[in-house]
Amino acid sequence: MERRILLTECQDAVGIIAKITNVCFQFKLNIIRQDQFASQEDNKFFMRTVLEGDFTNETTIDAFINTVKVVLPEGAIVHLKDDHKKKLCVLVTKEAHCLGEILMKAYSGALNADVVCVAGNYPDLGELAEKFNVPFKLVSTDGITKEEQEKQMMKVIDECNADYVILAKYMRILSPDFVNHYPLGKIINIHHSFLPAFIGAKPYLQAFNRGVKIIGATAHFVTNNLDEGPIIEQDVIKVTHRYDPETLAKAGHDVEQMVLIRAISKVLDDKVFIHGNKTVVF
Amino acid sequence: MERRILLTECQDAVGIIAKITNVCFQFKLNIIRQDQFASQEDNKFFMRTVLEGDFTNETTIDAFINTVKVVLPEGAIVHLKDDHKKKLCVLVTKEAHCLGEILMKAYSGALNADVVCVAGNYPDLGELAEKFNVPFKLVSTDGITKEEQEKQMMKVIDECNADYVILAKYMRILSPDFVNHYPLGKIINIHHSFLPAFIGAKPYLQAFNRGVKIIGATAHFVTNNLDEGPIIEQDVIKVTHRYDPETLAKAGHDVEQMVLIRAISKVLDDKVFIHGNKTVVF
Amino acid sequence: MERRILLTECQDAVGIIAKITNVCFQFKLNIIRQDQFASQEDNKFFMRTVLEGDFTNETTIDAFINTVKVVLPEGAIVHLKDDHKKKLCVLVTKEAHCLGEILMKAYSGALNADVVCVAGNYPDLGELAEKFNVPFKLVSTDGITKEEQEKQMMKVIDECNADYVILAKYMRILSPDFVNHYPLGKIINIHHSFLPAFIGAKPYLQAFNRGVKIIGATAHFVTNNLDEGPIIEQDVIKVTHRYDPETLAKAGHDVEQMVLIRAISKVLDDKVFIHGNKTVVF
Amino acid sequence: MERRILLTECQDAVGIIAKITNVCFQFKLNIIRQDQFASQEDNKFFMRTVLEGDFTNETTIDAFINTVKVVLPEGAIVHLKDDHKKKLCVLVTKEAHCLGEILMKAYSGALNADVVCVAGNYPDLGELAEKFNVPFKLVSTDGITKEEQEKQMMKVIDECNADYVILAKYMRILSPDFVNHYPLGKIINIHHSFLPAFIGAKPYLQAFNRGVKIIGATAHFVTNNLDEGPIIEQDVIKVTHRYDPETLAKAGHDVEQMVLIRAISKVLDDKVFIHGNKTVVF
Repeated sequence: MERRILLTECQDAVGIIAKITNVCFQFKLNIIRQDQFASQEDNKFFMRTVLEGDFTNETTIDAFINTVKVVLPEGAIVHLKDDHKKKLCVLVTKEAHCLGEILMKAYSGALNADVVCVAGNYPDLGELAEKFNVPFKLVSTDGITKEEQEKQMMKVIDECNADYVILAKYMRILSPDFVNHYPLGKIINIHHSFLPAFIGAKPYLQAFNRGVKIIGATAHFVTNNLDEGPIIEQDVIKVTHRYDPETLAKAGHDVEQMVLIRAISKVLDDKVFIHGNKTVVF
Repeated sequence: MERRILLTECQDAVGIIAKITNVCFQFKLNIIRQDQFASQEDNKFFMRTVLEGDFTNETTIDAFINTVKVVLPEGAIVHLKDDHKKKLCVLVTKEAHCLGEILMKAYSGALNADVVCVAGNYPDLGELAEKFNVPFKLVSTDGITKEEQEKQMMKVIDECNADYVILAKYMRILSPDFVNHYPLGKIINIHHSFLPAFIGAKPYLQAFNRGVKIIGATAHFVTNNLDEGPIIEQDVIKVTHRYDPETLAKAGHDVEQMVLIRAISKVLDDKVFIHGNKTVVF
Repeated sequence: MERRILLTECQDAVGIIAKITNVCFQFKLNIIRQDQFASQEDNKFFMRTVLEGDFTNETTIDAFINTVKVVLPEGAIVHLKDDHKKKLCVLVTKEAHCLGEILMKAYSGALNADVVCVAGNYPDLGELAEKFNVPFKLVSTDGITKEEQEKQMMKVIDECNADYVILAKYMRILSPDFVNHYPLGKIINIHHSFLPAFIGAKPYLQAFNRGVKIIGATAHFVTNNLDEGPIIEQDVIKVTHRYDPETLAKAGHDVEQMVLIRAISKVLDDKVFIHGNKTVVF
Repeated sequence: MERRILLTECQDAVGIIAKITNVCFQFKLNIIRQDQFASQEDNKFFMRTVLEGDFTNETTIDAFINTVKVVLPEGAIVHLKDDHKKKLCVLVTKEAHCLGEILMKAYSGALNADVVCVAGNYPDLGELAEKFNVPFKLVSTDGITKEEQEKQMMKVIDECNADYVILAKYMRILSPDFVNHYPLGKIINIHHSFLPAFIGAKPYLQAFNRGVKIIGATAHFVTNNLDEGPIIEQDVIKVTHRYDPETLAKAGHDVEQMVLIRAISKVLDDKVFIHGNKTVVF
């Protein structure tokens, strides 16, 4: 008995859940957990179904997926996911906290993923990556165009065959060409503020100047709108007038690493659907 | 087009979701939202399904419920709930904060319920109840036995025909006879601590003496084990060494009223199943 | 033995705390609690000192305050506050939750204040105010200019002799003339979002469209920059893709009332200093 | 200009703050931040004063400390702390998360400390310590008495000259002899539950069986009362009926590492006083 996760996404219609669960029953697959969401806004249907059963026969699996597709409205997206360890490529600049947390959680097994490559535009975090036996690639911006540097970075990412690219405080704005080179949902960014407040650079200085009593962090999928991709996870911590930009940043790092790890975990568990510029997170 | 909530509870088995959703489809009921839980511990299945459709024909409704029952394992519990306003009877002693929050939220419409009666063992909160035109019944303990006082209190509750009895800081321990007089799930209590810490009396003094950095509150269904019924909702707030028993209690009141209101809201929304000594809260 | 709160605010300098506490000692006043903050940014010093002693002799009190002033740099602001109940004038439109919480907490004694007047631009909340025996003044905008309506509103406020004006979801933007009519720090507003995100109208619709996972509220002093006054208190709650604009607003109401009450409590306890466009909150 | 932290602890008396701050002024030390607490319970006074000035002359420093002592009641405890990096010895068993977080934060500089030794009763975490170039000492319990094993462990601790001993999920109960070998305040433990709930072993199974909606963690100083030492820091996270003992434990690990790191940070910043069986945390 194994487990698989069935992800379905289509236009909503009466009877969809019955149809899908019937197919599961017909293929003798037990439903361990099921979450569904129907958006009132645009009539979209999303469902995540954890199945238990015999998945050894490839032909039967294909038949199962096809039967699900047949009962659903045209244009339905159907995936059956197993729980193999996903591969992460982590892009960094100089700050260690997010990368450190990812490496540690992958090392301890708390994160069901392998970090296959760390790539940075500065060499600072090479030592940390190598502690965990992860190859570090320096893709410097020195003396080359942004276009050239991005080309080299895409080569690094493509060669390591990563399932997801994590921007763990990678302090470069990606060009549209870079973003478009990858399917939506593959690149995850941690933004050092509670979006949509303090969009852009120096959010901790902005927060200090505004005198806020709470700071936050936002993990989101990357699109070509800066800091505007679908939000996966957000959290905050309380601060006081005693914080200066430096201690705000230090406190912010804790939220950043926590929010990023939670977002990655949910994506790895196939709990996140992209829904326009938003997400559905089960 | 109306909405109803279908609640199903039975032994788990392969195909249960398919069977139930098939019946919904057959009766042309659209599923707006569905949550299910299968307990690995004891193989129990719980499902809450929000349905949209035509519920005007009583015969059809009965047929629908019966068909659901037929497809489920023996012993299944099936309810179809409409969203009529439930009636609350609130039991109090002297502290106003929980009663006040219930009355206010019922008044503003944030709580989908009518407070039909407030009953107290002291007269202190009569004035508050009457501000909101809710009858107040004094059921004093003076000069009578506990048994007699409880008998009078049960009479008050039974006469007001309440769907739920809320112990909003009612500082009397209910006898087994009182508790057994009502079905499990009808009486909700707010406990002034984060159970299972500080069971029993004077939790804020206990918390002060222990020097905790967090205090909490717990809303639970009442059973005959003191402070041991199924927990519906809990929350906490942070405190420091500067709090004394009095300011701890004041801070605690805020958590108590918040936790109690959230628990009542979830119960009113038919989101809470009792599962042995625990709850399933969708 | 009584308690008073000494508030001091001046340019920072070496020895300030020693000088002030010496004066306290000299006047035989025991320090129960003392909080101080020195801003590195602009070298401003703020201190709140809770004193216990004999404050019956007015001449001695005056001498004490003057002696404190004398030892401090020129331009120092010195206040000695007693704990008499402050008077609140609450401005509202149609939403009951914030007003309800203020009235209830004032009634139960959890808020050390008297609500002396509720004024609304709509009649909807008159009934609620009157439940608590608080006069309600309708200052409608119908058929009159904004200027005229504000003039009437200022008259209402001035006549009730309020210490603080609470905008408890008063959905009118105040003119500069109105704001300037009162000293900075007298008017407190609750903003229905986590500032600086979603400035302006319909924040819950904005939050829904952006797909945020957290919503918040901000209590701040009112200045002539819309939604830009010194922030006193902020908090958030988590939301999911299941929230629509309406349920977001309902959830938001809970944070709004909680944040507003906390801000008012801190202001009533003389724990809040205004520091440029920020606050120092002890 | 350097910074030092003055810690004072004594019986409360009128004028204490004036006396101490006078001495600071007399020695030309500027007060950057000051926090004080006077316990109403037992009339104890605690103060932490961050000073800025010239601390190069040892004779002057000694004179300063002595002068502070002279002005305070008999029995006063006075310390002047500099901010040299403290040395940590971390005791572990098999779980990596708390050790990992400590090593990473010390590596990145977020924790102002050097981990000088990791000692375990199992060899599992040796690899992790060595990644960060920290010596790992295996002090196995195999084939020797508890007394003997503790003797060896104390030797390891004493030889590394640690300022603090961190029990980072060290799953052995320390004997009174071990505890008494060190001054109170030197050993910090992370307890895998929200004390005083679920004292003792298997807290996550206990939490599962009780059906709680929140789990927590507690960092405390170690005394000879199991799980009863002065609490430094606590926090919680929300859980649901969907958590089993394993996922509860995984969620619990996140709170444990967060709470432990916060407690260590505060201790390293000299913000924590021990007050009987409680703490004062500034």
